[in-house]
Amino acid sequence: MHCLRLSLAVFLSIAAAISTIAQSAPKSLTEQLGYPPNAKLLIVHADDLGVTHSVNAASIKALESGAVNSASIMVPCPWFPEIADYAKSHPEMDFGLHLTLTSERIYIRWGPVASADEVRSLLDENSYFHHDWTPATKIDPQEVEIELRAQIDRAYAMGVRPTHLDSHQYRLDSTGKELFEVALRLAHQYQLPFFVARDWFADYPYLASTLGSEDVVIDHTITVEPGVRPEKWAEFYKNALRDLQPGVTELVIHLAYDDSEMRAATRERDTWGAAWRQRDFDFFTGPEFRRLLKDQNIQLVTWRQIANRPKLR
Amino acid sequence: MHCLRLSLAVFLSIAAAISTIAQSAPKSLTEQLGYPPNAKLLIVHADDLGVTHSVNAASIKALESGAVNSASIMVPCPWFPEIADYAKSHPEMDFGLHLTLTSERIYIRWGPVASADEVRSLLDENSYFHHDWTPATKIDPQEVEIELRAQIDRAYAMGVRPTHLDSHQYRLDSTGKELFEVALRLAHQYQLPFFVARDWFADYPYLASTLGSEDVVIDHTITVEPGVRPEKWAEFYKNALRDLQPGVTELVIHLAYDDSEMRAATRERDTWGAAWRQRDFDFFTGPEFRRLLKDQNIQLVTWRQIANRPKLR
Repeated sequence: MHCLRLSLAVFLSIAAAISTIAQSAPKSLTEQLGYPPNAKLLIVHADDLGVTHSVNAASIKALESGAVNSASIMVPCPWFPEIADYAKSHPEMDFGLHLTLTSERIYIRWGPVASADEVRSLLDENSYFHHDWTPATKIDPQEVEIELRAQIDRAYAMGVRPTHLDSHQYRLDSTGKELFEVALRLAHQYQLPFFVARDWFADYPYLASTLGSEDVVIDHTITVEPGVRPEKWAEFYKNALRDLQPGVTELVIHLAYDDSEMRAATRERDTWGAAWRQRDFDFFTGPEFRRLLKDQNIQLVTWRQIANRPKLR
Repeated sequence: MHCLRLSLAVFLSIAAAISTIAQSAPKSLTEQLGYPPNAKLLIVHADDLGVTHSVNAASIKALESGAVNSASIMVPCPWFPEIADYAKSHPEMDFGLHLTLTSERIYIRWGPVASADEVRSLLDENSYFHHDWTPATKIDPQEVEIELRAQIDRAYAMGVRPTHLDSHQYRLDSTGKELFEVALRLAHQYQLPFFVARDWFADYPYLASTLGSEDVVIDHTITVEPGVRPEKWAEFYKNALRDLQPGVTELVIHLAYDDSEMRAATRERDTWGAAWRQRDFDFFTGPEFRRLLKDQNIQLVTWRQIANRPKLR
């Protein structure tokens, strides 16, 4: 019995010592996920689900092929019910909510989930979300919170169980401290991680100063930009994967088929248009991407794993 | 000079006599349009524009082919901006507004143009329009008026100059006197004819008793119903055109392509689905329809002609 007490005392001392060490050097997100610190972890994440049937169909196809492993959904968009129904019947899939405050197309548009009168600063003269935000667009953060709460609540009500939150066009990350605070408040209230990448801290210093110690920060993010010529698409991704840094990276991609619906929906400009999305689909469902993941020893992780990771330091 | 005075007196007497005769037997709509009373006049009218790109594209194609000569647009639907843009740049086309109070599909849905808080009786628990109305659905006529005014105002604001109003799923005609009164109030306020057919008077007696002497009444309406088997489609229309009665008839049709978007949008049931709409498209853009119009001496008229007809009795 004495012996046991002694052992317990020794054990507690050792545990306290470990805890002190751990507190002085918090585990990285990669370690929290159970990987060695220099592991290369990747979320292959499709954006914009719900916008059109074409986006939904291509994204589902890519998710079911297994090489794309996460996605996020735009609740105010017309085809949200289709993807909500799919999410409900596929609870194992890693679906987040792509919180939406703009309606950036011309021939297909959407408006608020909240009552229009409650969120007037977010709307144009026809009660759609603004096409874009300019310095003259005065966005009321309280209205942003009302609208986004309505989007999240509709998603839950229609059977979606989101694993994470992120922001369409990065509006909540890049518009100022106040909107970023709204995003974090929602993340805390619904107990969901909100997508923030350490890459963005230099451009938006309020991100680092606003985040709390319990908030998730992804290390890096990669996305193809308009400067990449169509014929260089695969090369861009190949180089990005070969140069992938240790840590958690989110690869943000945009899937759809280059079909009549998607061509009509995006015909005013090529950026993030039908052909762009078909190129993404072709690369991320093709054999080369899988081969690169294997050759570069890249492990896929999901937002669900991030949300459920043990948070012990 | 005396002679002229006498002639004027005679002329006025004759005019008064004609006017008396005319008042005792008002001109039919057919006559008001400048046709003999036994003429067979037809509006070939495509419904549901704005719902999907597929509906818009097929309807535009059929309107431009010339054998379909009128259509109406659903303002709350996602592809309204596409068809509004087309209507704005084609002011010669005969576009009405298909006043919408329901969202009858499952995988693609839409909600109000008015602020949701102002029209709660029209909305389901997710703030879409009700999928259907049952006896338990308590629709507030004042909210119907608020919503429909918002739809009409958005259409004008986005450049549509409607030639007429009609009602998606005939909700405003078939739900009771109060909603029909809302439709007529809007028709009067915006000075647009509202589609009512004499065929419906027996089933809905409040129609005849609510209509004023200045309101337009179409004589007949024809539309293919779910009972018609796909292989009998053309035969149904051929018989309908061969049996066409004198007067003004509206042929209500539903156009779209049987493509991936439309199949996905309507996959829960075949009625008014993608294949149905492709059948309508094929018949009304095909040579047989034109031949039948010619053979049966059927004249096409538009809602614009009806709205602009001389109203002298």
